[in-house]
Amino acid sequence: MPKAKAAHQSLTTMTEMVLPNDTNTLNNLMGGRLLHWMDICAAIAAQKHANRIVVTASVDSVSFVEAIQLGDIVTMEAKVTRAFNSSMEVYIKVWAQNISAGEAATKTNSAFYTFVAVDQSGRPIEVPQATAETDEEKELFASALRRRQLRLVLAGRMKPAEAVELRALFELG
Amino acid sequence: MPKAKAAHQSLTTMTEMVLPNDTNTLNNLMGGRLLHWMDICAAIAAQKHANRIVVTASVDSVSFVEAIQLGDIVTMEAKVTRAFNSSMEVYIKVWAQNISAGEAATKTNSAFYTFVAVDQSGRPIEVPQATAETDEEKELFASALRRRQLRLVLAGRMKPAEAVELRALFELG
Amino acid sequence: MPKAKAAHQSLTTMTEMVLPNDTNTLNNLMGGRLLHWMDICAAIAAQKHANRIVVTASVDSVSFVEAIQLGDIVTMEAKVTRAFNSSMEVYIKVWAQNISAGEAATKTNSAFYTFVAVDQSGRPIEVPQATAETDEEKELFASALRRRQLRLVLAGRMKPAEAVELRALFELG
Amino acid sequence: MPKAKAAHQSLTTMTEMVLPNDTNTLNNLMGGRLLHWMDICAAIAAQKHANRIVVTASVDSVSFVEAIQLGDIVTMEAKVTRAFNSSMEVYIKVWAQNISAGEAATKTNSAFYTFVAVDQSGRPIEVPQATAETDEEKELFASALRRRQLRLVLAGRMKPAEAVELRALFELG
Amino acid sequence: MPKAKAAHQSLTTMTEMVLPNDTNTLNNLMGGRLLHWMDICAAIAAQKHANRIVVTASVDSVSFVEAIQLGDIVTMEAKVTRAFNSSMEVYIKVWAQNISAGEAATKTNSAFYTFVAVDQSGRPIEVPQATAETDEEKELFASALRRRQLRLVLAGRMKPAEAVELRALFELG
Amino acid sequence: MPKAKAAHQSLTTMTEMVLPNDTNTLNNLMGGRLLHWMDICAAIAAQKHANRIVVTASVDSVSFVEAIQLGDIVTMEAKVTRAFNSSMEVYIKVWAQNISAGEAATKTNSAFYTFVAVDQSGRPIEVPQATAETDEEKELFASALRRRQLRLVLAGRMKPAEAVELRALFELG
Repeated sequence: MPKAKAAHQSLTTMTEMVLPNDTNTLNNLMGGRLLHWMDICAAIAAQKHANRIVVTASVDSVSFVEAIQLGDIVTMEAKVTRAFNSSMEVYIKVWAQNISAGEAATKTNSAFYTFVAVDQSGRPIEVPQATAETDEEKELFASALRRRQLRLVLAGRMKPAEAVELRALFELG
Repeated sequence: MPKAKAAHQSLTTMTEMVLPNDTNTLNNLMGGRLLHWMDICAAIAAQKHANRIVVTASVDSVSFVEAIQLGDIVTMEAKVTRAFNSSMEVYIKVWAQNISAGEAATKTNSAFYTFVAVDQSGRPIEVPQATAETDEEKELFASALRRRQLRLVLAGRMKPAEAVELRALFELG
Repeated sequence: MPKAKAAHQSLTTMTEMVLPNDTNTLNNLMGGRLLHWMDICAAIAAQKHANRIVVTASVDSVSFVEAIQLGDIVTMEAKVTRAFNSSMEVYIKVWAQNISAGEAATKTNSAFYTFVAVDQSGRPIEVPQATAETDEEKELFASALRRRQLRLVLAGRMKPAEAVELRALFELG
Repeated sequence: MPKAKAAHQSLTTMTEMVLPNDTNTLNNLMGGRLLHWMDICAAIAAQKHANRIVVTASVDSVSFVEAIQLGDIVTMEAKVTRAFNSSMEVYIKVWAQNISAGEAATKTNSAFYTFVAVDQSGRPIEVPQATAETDEEKELFASALRRRQLRLVLAGRMKPAEAVELRALFELG
Repeated sequence: MPKAKAAHQSLTTMTEMVLPNDTNTLNNLMGGRLLHWMDICAAIAAQKHANRIVVTASVDSVSFVEAIQLGDIVTMEAKVTRAFNSSMEVYIKVWAQNISAGEAATKTNSAFYTFVAVDQSGRPIEVPQATAETDEEKELFASALRRRQLRLVLAGRMKPAEAVELRALFELG
Repeated sequence: MPKAKAAHQSLTTMTEMVLPNDTNTLNNLMGGRLLHWMDICAAIAAQKHANRIVVTASVDSVSFVEAIQLGDIVTMEAKVTRAFNSSMEVYIKVWAQNISAGEAATKTNSAFYTFVAVDQSGRPIEVPQATAETDEEKELFASALRRRQLRLVLAGRMKPAEAVELRALFELG
């Protein structure tokens, strides 16, 4: 197995300016465009961790609460939280800012994407474990197991009864 | 409340050809691009149901199992499953096909997006209820409640103990 | 010769949202962008019929009567009308709709594109004949011959005097 | 009526490099992309003649004989041939060249687009007549009438029997 | 005059993946695309400093020594170096990395862009002075005067004889 | 060495319409987009001269004085000024015009780009000398040496004391 790497080594920052073609008729950023940007930013973080080509395996449910406007600056930060054999979970946070109005950046979203590292033929290949150092990294590392169980249950690849950590979330015995 | 409309009236079919800029270095469609296309297709279905501008409220977890190749034709079909006041859940199915190789279309994905209908000032506005007619539509209408609870729990806006239908999914008392 | 296929098997539906970069300074969809979308939609229909790579051979004259607005939903439906050795004629219809204003879809355009099926080296290759079933399909199948003659005359590859069916259009002996 | 202007004053030259997203899986320029570029180039020529916003009214039938390759340089030249009240016919010629292979430019296409000049509310507005000076300009000016009749017949807005100049093309009495 | 701000407050990091349409036929990133990305990244840094809309005033000469490949990750870091009334100089550094080959990031470029802050009518408006803190920031702050003189001389808006600091660069009295 | 070619044989004209995604929130063309267009136009001129693939080696400092508006037509003309072994300097001029307002074209920019001709492996390869014929071409040919020295000094590849022609610009002995 490849040598473990610190989670923070995969940190990737991406900045985008919201242009007219990214918006709906209310001049708000369309959700799908943001999902696209987040996927690229998170994929680069996973690539940095694995030093491999990566393919998106899943995105957890994402909600869009704050409207992001035409002309806003969108900043994304992605970092690997934990690795499982050939797959990596990436946590990504999103801020938007109307800079010319002098506003501070607002956190608008966060999401978990998972990626699989593959070789040149597209076959899964083992990746290094990610080492958590800060408190936030440790919390994300620990809870990654629960999110992985939810993904497997939702994809019909694990029985709910076997999702031990996930059941605990629902305060069940 | 506006008069109920049949779910099938919102049916929207979208077709895309996978071009070079949509792919990674393995010539596979990037997950984020597909999420973007699905958002546009599902948003049009929600618009048809509401006859209003709609904004993406959330996307449920999506997994990417089948690789889609450069040159493939991607077909998406979206339909509203159920409405809740100003929000609508849309179910979207995705197929990919390498036509020139004579292959049949393969179902590669499905997802649930939710949208909120808004007026010109961006304020939520009530939408018609969706009427299920086929067996598949009825099943999707019924299970929409459970998915809604999962979204609210995951967004921290409902306590797991209150998610009655969702708990049933985990076969708990 | 490959086995004939029903015309309706090639039916392709494409949906596009008119975005800012698709419009002129009056916020109307530019004609060239619509021609581009129609070419892609029609090419996919021809690919479905031939199960081959296809290249655009010609587009018949197209007129743009109705203005299509920014934010409108454009729906296109393309279907093969008739095959001639390695070439196929595709009929494509276009509707536009301002959904959030509650308007019904308006038919804005229709056109005939022709495609040639080619092998991996780009050489023309025979395609199945298309079988017309509905009344509209039968009418389109029959009139395809006349349109083909007009194309050949306009391209200088047939003498007007030889275009028997076409001359009939001009009510000449 | 505005003062007549020389046809050559509207001459517009546009150059494009064929990029990956413009090509099909044979690495050939897609026909629809070329139609899109030609529309923009021709529209600029019409704008120069009318000093007005213009909208595409029609494109005559176009055939694609020569394949244009990825990396080729496409050069287009457009010029107004004749004006009719608020509409203008534009003739556009297209060349492609694989420069790095040392090849000469090859003429690949030509087409006629028509545009209508409009005011800020989108209403048609009279344009100057175009004055033909060279032999080619005079020939195009003269034949414009015949093409206009063909367009009107094809659009169902003129009876074939009334298309006097057009009938002459078919060598009919 | 607005209160001075620390140079590092304008730090902006942008990450781009080199896609097929960004490359020439050797699969190398085209210089113009990189200049475009650098302009956006540097403009955001200037916006952060000024809290205003900014327009590009100039870019100093840029040389492209290292080829950047298709699939590489391009990282840019931009920071304001010094302000002059309504204009700001931004220093931007560029790295490229072929991550999946396990290569380290290589510094490929750096450039100086200048921007002018404007109000909603496009009129220049005063910006805060930038305070240098690190050694690199101090060196860039000091040398900004010399680069400004070179820009003015090259633009024909200052006589070479008056460019005192610049002349010193050429070791002249 | 390849046979010399006249400078004017490389003349390349490119026309672009400023679309919404090319503009900032003041509806002005972004500087980086213009730099991108200029690079493509100048690269095509260099390709025509060398009949080779070319890569951008540098762009001299460019200033943006005139704002170019949404909907304007941008015309660029590029021509090789002089060749040095495998590199070529290209001079490019830019005009913008609001045609529908009846305005004349305004010269907004000019710049010097340099390109290196390369073979299929990306190795520099000798190009023909460029022959100046008009007065402007002769002036540009002569001054190319001075600009080349400035580029080398700014890139740290020539000592200011050795830049004989450049020093003359600063009226120094």
